[in-house]
Amino acid sequence: MRTTMESGYRGTAGSRAGVNAFRLGALVALVGPPLCVAAVEDTAFYGSLLGFVLILLAAKLGADVFERLRQPTVLGELLVGMLLSGLALAGVETLGRLKDDAALQVVAEIGVILLLFEVGLHSRLHELLEVGLSAAIVATLGVMAPVGLGWLVSQWFFPTEPWYVHLFVGATLAATSVGITARVLQEMNWLESREARIILGAAVVDDVLGLVLLALLSGTVSAIASGGSARLEAAAVGSILAKAAGFLVGAIVVGRVIHLRAVRYGLLMRVPGMGIVIALSFCFSLAALAGKLGLAPIVGAFAAGLILEPSDYEAYRERGELPIEQLIHPIAGLLTPVFFVMMGLRVDLRAFVSTESLGFALAVTLVAILAKQVCSLGVVQRGIQRWVVGAGMVPRGEVGLIFTGMGARLMVDNQPIFDASTVSAMVVMVIVTTLAGPLLLKVLLKSSVPPAARPGMVSNV
Amino acid sequence: MRTTMESGYRGTAGSRAGVNAFRLGALVALVGPPLCVAAVEDTAFYGSLLGFVLILLAAKLGADVFERLRQPTVLGELLVGMLLSGLALAGVETLGRLKDDAALQVVAEIGVILLLFEVGLHSRLHELLEVGLSAAIVATLGVMAPVGLGWLVSQWFFPTEPWYVHLFVGATLAATSVGITARVLQEMNWLESREARIILGAAVVDDVLGLVLLALLSGTVSAIASGGSARLEAAAVGSILAKAAGFLVGAIVVGRVIHLRAVRYGLLMRVPGMGIVIALSFCFSLAALAGKLGLAPIVGAFAAGLILEPSDYEAYRERGELPIEQLIHPIAGLLTPVFFVMMGLRVDLRAFVSTESLGFALAVTLVAILAKQVCSLGVVQRGIQRWVVGAGMVPRGEVGLIFTGMGARLMVDNQPIFDASTVSAMVVMVIVTTLAGPLLLKVLLKSSVPPAARPGMVSNV
Repeated sequence: MRTTMESGYRGTAGSRAGVNAFRLGALVALVGPPLCVAAVEDTAFYGSLLGFVLILLAAKLGADVFERLRQPTVLGELLVGMLLSGLALAGVETLGRLKDDAALQVVAEIGVILLLFEVGLHSRLHELLEVGLSAAIVATLGVMAPVGLGWLVSQWFFPTEPWYVHLFVGATLAATSVGITARVLQEMNWLESREARIILGAAVVDDVLGLVLLALLSGTVSAIASGGSARLEAAAVGSILAKAAGFLVGAIVVGRVIHLRAVRYGLLMRVPGMGIVIALSFCFSLAALAGKLGLAPIVGAFAAGLILEPSDYEAYRERGELPIEQLIHPIAGLLTPVFFVMMGLRVDLRAFVSTESLGFALAVTLVAILAKQVCSLGVVQRGIQRWVVGAGMVPRGEVGLIFTGMGARLMVDNQPIFDASTVSAMVVMVIVTTLAGPLLLKVLLKSSVPPAARPGMVSNV
Repeated sequence: MRTTMESGYRGTAGSRAGVNAFRLGALVALVGPPLCVAAVEDTAFYGSLLGFVLILLAAKLGADVFERLRQPTVLGELLVGMLLSGLALAGVETLGRLKDDAALQVVAEIGVILLLFEVGLHSRLHELLEVGLSAAIVATLGVMAPVGLGWLVSQWFFPTEPWYVHLFVGATLAATSVGITARVLQEMNWLESREARIILGAAVVDDVLGLVLLALLSGTVSAIASGGSARLEAAAVGSILAKAAGFLVGAIVVGRVIHLRAVRYGLLMRVPGMGIVIALSFCFSLAALAGKLGLAPIVGAFAAGLILEPSDYEAYRERGELPIEQLIHPIAGLLTPVFFVMMGLRVDLRAFVSTESLGFALAVTLVAILAKQVCSLGVVQRGIQRWVVGAGMVPRGEVGLIFTGMGARLMVDNQPIFDASTVSAMVVMVIVTTLAGPLLLKVLLKSSVPPAARPGMVSNV
């Protein structure tokens, strides 16, 4: 009984899923080295399967504990991932390999793409545009305040360091990781609130600004390093902004037309299950397109969810298929936790013990949390719980790690911009904000009137 | 809005899903070569996403055409894959890359694992054991007849070739690819029939025999090549048989106990969705275990489905969760077609035009189909449609390709066992049997009384 694919016939090295190759693998000792690659690749696939099982079970355990504590379950998933990461440090080597597992990373990535797609499905474009001005100001303040305050703190602690180190510290504090916030809002049924819309809208703008910042920074630093000019950057920034704007407008205008056509053509098909295939195709295509343009794929997934109205699939429901949200939710529910456990796994707990200047780590963390509260000033509408918006912007997640990684690798005069101690402080900041964000949000949401009961709110449930 | 993971911080090359790395990638030109790996990996992820979309849509198109023709939709998926493979040959380079895409291969592999898990869920262990003797004889005949007839045909066409070439040709004709047959039986609601049980039971035995054959063959050939003795093989075969038997018995006995405990412990959890997590964990764990032991992972998935009774999850249904089959079917329905499209994609259509001895290709194909009809003699029960069993064993799928690949790579005196022309003939055999199997099965099943209406049948629907 064998039905697995195998690239043995072609001898390509890239065949990871050719599971039957393991049989060949078992014979490699007899046959010799040419087959080794396939065998190694397949053992990796079995490892991924077992890793997937481990992560699914761990996610449920973590979520269960936090459910009992009446805290956001996403925190349980993050912490259980960090626990596994700690066990990996303690010498459980198998766990250490999990975080670098390519297949699990793909699963995690699809999990977060589906999460933002779901969030988009629950949002309405016109409602998002209504809060557009607030979202834009919130995002801009949410980038400017951390950059400024981060710079000041860095200069205070390390007055002898050059200015671009301070700038890099500030930039690392700037970018928000919206996945965690989206999950908390989803768990607490706050996705339909205007606060949620402002946060989500700001997250899109934040992503574009982060991209610009990243381009400016690395361009500037490499220009300094090579002694050249920084003229290239203006063009790069312009191109990034044009691409991002083009993508968002294009996705919404052209995407809507294409989607409606696809839904209509899909009805001509006799095979069942066309609805979910069209919806997922749309989501993955926009995610990939956003990624190819340099934006985060989840921005594309969110845009896809925005464009796609569940009512578009009315005709499929009449044919006996389930509503699109009900088809996507079980898959997303299975895969999304993998993303958060993996995020926890990738946290380097050594940062806590290896921080030489604990004071700097604490100060930077405090500033990271406070600076995002400046966001709340950007809300122009009335009747909005400003602190909810501020709290929603707190988690830095893996985005902070990206900047930290850049800082650790970019060299000026053979010196990395971030030394080991700064890297540790930044990782501490990421861990604390990622955990503090959901807790803060939880407290604020619990003490607030639920969105449906408030005046001026149009519920879309 | 960024929530994607990134290994930039650690600098590991294996991070495929670290999607944000693409942003870094966009800056690679400025920053320099150290970041290149991450950027390339992420472009691959976006390619995989788009490939997934393409395959989902292509699968639906192919299935729709075959639905209209009232033929098994799995054939439509296979053929659409072959069509894409043809377009790849015609120069559409993107399509050529699809079949080697690591992420898509993982998706395809999980698709076929879920298919066999579903098939297992619909089978009952005691009913499978009732046909155990038939299944064992069917499988044994189904290996012996093709090996013998294949040898004769090969000797007839190439009398000057050494004996092990003929043996290898025979072995390539032996192994059945049960995924296609399982899909057809599922589509036509024949999974509950005794014929289906014999085919599935025989497929398990067939897999073990195939493994033994592969070990014997490559061991013998490498012994000939190196001029040494073949003593090693007896031990290898014994170990393979012991492992296979140990796995099957262990999975059924120990697995059942563990599963019942897991289900009970799962009820202690407050988070929703434990049922599907336990079921999938069980399926993937056994699939990985089977793979690690050298068996096909789908044998493990099938065993997991056999052990797991939907009624085990009664308590979860009382808590408001959907029945386990209803939770798994939408995911399997989405991913299984990917496996068959990928199988079609991996078919090398050049085999048809590059066959120098068309006569040999035709003879070998005919023998491959006829030899499996010998299987029908192995059915000891009465009232069984023997030809259905024979037809069910016809598809060779990718298993034939594995053997072909081995034959093309194993060297004796610097000569591969299979020359280019033999390889082509074998690929033609695989293509024709893979397509003919479902068609044959369809014709036989349509002219037969459906299983539920026949005496002596206990329906489990």
